Amino acid sequence: MTTPQSWDARAKAATFFGFTDLPSINERGTVIITHGEGPYIIDTEGRRYLDANSGLWNIVAGFDHEGLTRAAQEQYARFPGYHAFFGRMSDQAVLLSEKLVEISPFESGKVFYTNSGSEANDTMVKMLWFMHAAEGNPQKRKIITRKNAYHGVTAISASMTGKPYNSVFGLPLDGFVHLSCPHYWREGRDGETEAEFTARMGAELEEVIAREGADTIAGFFAEPIMGAGGVIPPSDGYFDTIIPILRKHGIPVISDEVICGLGRTGEMWGCETYGFTPDVIISSKALTAGFFPMGAIILGPEISDRLQRATDAIEEFPHGFTASGHPVGCAIALKAIEVIEGGLLDNVRRLTPAFEAGLQRLSQMDNIGEWRGKGLMGALEAVKDKATKTPFDGSLSVSERIANTCTDHGLICRPLGQSIVLAPPFIATDAHLEEMFDKLEAALKKVFSEVA
Amino acid sequence: MTTPQSWDARAKAATFFGFTDLPSINERGTVIITHGEGPYIIDTEGRRYLDANSGLWNIVAGFDHEGLTRAAQEQYARFPGYHAFFGRMSDQAVLLSEKLVEISPFESGKVFYTNSGSEANDTMVKMLWFMHAAEGNPQKRKIITRKNAYHGVTAISASMTGKPYNSVFGLPLDGFVHLSCPHYWREGRDGETEAEFTARMGAELEEVIAREGADTIAGFFAEPIMGAGGVIPPSDGYFDTIIPILRKHGIPVISDEVICGLGRTGEMWGCETYGFTPDVIISSKALTAGFFPMGAIILGPEISDRLQRATDAIEEFPHGFTASGHPVGCAIALKAIEVIEGGLLDNVRRLTPAFEAGLQRLSQMDNIGEWRGKGLMGALEAVKDKATKTPFDGSLSVSERIANTCTDHGLICRPLGQSIVLAPPFIATDAHLEEMFDKLEAALKKVFSEVA
Repeated sequence: MTTPQSWDARAKAATFFGFTDLPSINERGTVIITHGEGPYIIDTEGRRYLDANSGLWNIVAGFDHEGLTRAAQEQYARFPGYHAFFGRMSDQAVLLSEKLVEISPFESGKVFYTNSGSEANDTMVKMLWFMHAAEGNPQKRKIITRKNAYHGVTAISASMTGKPYNSVFGLPLDGFVHLSCPHYWREGRDGETEAEFTARMGAELEEVIAREGADTIAGFFAEPIMGAGGVIPPSDGYFDTIIPILRKHGIPVISDEVICGLGRTGEMWGCETYGFTPDVIISSKALTAGFFPMGAIILGPEISDRLQRATDAIEEFPHGFTASGHPVGCAIALKAIEVIEGGLLDNVRRLTPAFEAGLQRLSQMDNIGEWRGKGLMGALEAVKDKATKTPFDGSLSVSERIANTCTDHGLICRPLGQSIVLAPPFIATDAHLEEMFDKLEAALKKVFSEVA
Repeated sequence: MTTPQSWDARAKAATFFGFTDLPSINERGTVIITHGEGPYIIDTEGRRYLDANSGLWNIVAGFDHEGLTRAAQEQYARFPGYHAFFGRMSDQAVLLSEKLVEISPFESGKVFYTNSGSEANDTMVKMLWFMHAAEGNPQKRKIITRKNAYHGVTAISASMTGKPYNSVFGLPLDGFVHLSCPHYWREGRDGETEAEFTARMGAELEEVIAREGADTIAGFFAEPIMGAGGVIPPSDGYFDTIIPILRKHGIPVISDEVICGLGRTGEMWGCETYGFTPDVIISSKALTAGFFPMGAIILGPEISDRLQRATDAIEEFPHGFTASGHPVGCAIALKAIEVIEGGLLDNVRRLTPAFEAGLQRLSQMDNIGEWRGKGLMGALEAVKDKATKTPFDGSLSVSERIANTCTDHGLICRPLGQSIVLAPPFIATDAHLEEMFDKLEAALKKVFSEVA
């Protein structure tokens, strides 16, 4: 696979790889993609893959969506770049901000743009620190998140992320507190009902607030469904239990909708799926259907007002990214929202029963411990022993083997821990789901026969 | 200006403004831009402005460059989005990484992509923390930068930034050490020669390293010319003095070329302008000529090897952004580099004497204390008293008044502290420079007659 001047050799020579299993690419080579067709990507050797992860959850309208392509091309012809500093911005940024407030759960609000979900979460932390300090509470700096949560990779958003791998960077920084992961199947105790488990999650939050001091806490961030943690919907009643506790202590609630937002869960926002209204929504990924790097912070009315008062006092909010509110990104996002509202969200809802049925069917296998999911995000967790939920030995790299076997047969899915994660694009058809489950089933059978 | 449903009202209703002087927009309104022509932007009321800041230093090929627009449009038609995780990436990312190493000062190296300069600096800090810890030096975490330096707005890159405004966020975080700003005109002592000043900068660095302990320092970051600090070239011999000190103590040197890189200083890289070879180059802004959000970390051979060894040991570098190495961004960057190498860099060099002559001419005014600059980045610093270098009273907002007066006459320039900063696009002509200096001169005369 690696020959001098092969794509693989060229890629390896000049790339520092991130989030890449090096043994896999050393053994199997890289995959260099040249183009796409609907939900398929095609590599330099003409191999075709159904990408059951929509790229990275984001390319929800496929890899050659005509409407989005045209929106991008037209905006490049019209106005290909500007910023949003100094009270100057493109008309597209104004239109998108209006639209985002309109489709948000908020009656009014204000929008701030970044280039990614990482930047949006990092910015939101700075906004909270700024707001609390301006209100006379500079000690309100701690950020509460959950174990297994994923909020990004800047040093701050990685500190929010509850993954053990961040220890290699000496992260998290001080002041980031991680609650338990509300995953009943894995974290529930022997004999504990789901209702008892949820109550325990609430009690833990009360204890953490008492221990840390409510007057030291800047805010609480949560993904409605944990995404890169392995698609983990909360236990029944989780948000109904914790949101009132946070409200009681005056702790701002930020819904990290980078993955869940804009249709993935079957509602426009994941917080709607779980029946709570946050103070702030963080959006990215589907926001541009993966056609442009963009994050958006949608501030609800109360936080908006508090931040505006804090800013008025010093005449300027000293923060912003060069490409914040880029006209092409905004034009693409306007089109993506139109496409999602105009049919893709309905298609997510239409496909959900078949998606869930497929997950449920495969979860009958002896080495699948649990299926879980909501809307078009799902996971199957591999186990060595179904009854005891015992995982496979880590050295077997079971999920990587499953994913690599799928890749060999033209299906891209994502190994996360010992789970296989599926997040097909919103444009998927029943036939695409069938192809996905058929290929995944074959790979599961093959790998389980080798390791079980 | 603000009428119901006017663009101004709509912008204000739904935007949380960053880096925006609120008194200015409250009094004067926002400026909403619809399109551009060459170096000009045009607003919703048909007003035309020569943007003497290339957007934010980045839109170096103008606001309607045909070649860049076509490159973007063609890549959208071909492959409009993908990531660079899991050893999969677009062909465009491979081609751009090769090209970046080729045009870098390095004989070999590896590239890592982000969506902004902020993310690139933040990532580089994480890379240093990771590398030192893997090499058995987890205590090497301090980052050395300079006062007045600008490295971004994530909490980490803002901590690197040496600007007092970051105190409103409770930043910098611990472990960020800021050396003096090497600005001889402002920071030199009475009777101190420039050579003595530069020697003092070197002695300060030695003292800081001794005080902090070389074995606690992760790296040193510097813009070759400080940009958002107000265009501050270093004093004569500055880098010749400090680089050997950093080398002696084994401290990695990172050249933040977000603004200087890709031609702004008259050489491809700012470090070439000052005759030093760093360990790493951080690139952004001109990299896509402002047509796409992108940052690139170009790792030189030594750091590349050290990071690769650290990564091999744990099989994966657990870091990456969803839109890292986006195919459209890479295709645009390839075209931008082609355009810069194919003529724009020559034009920067050709225009530099006229640019410097214009700055020098205006610096004759009684209320201009200094002109400074290099290539196509320059500044004029306003003073109340030229002999004593006494600044105007801050409450007069002199630089904002100058910039606002320029805007009234169709010229965009940037107030930074008490300086006016100019960074015309690389496509500028002599006529554009004349228009810029004529309008700026008129604004300076008007404002100085009011305040002096």
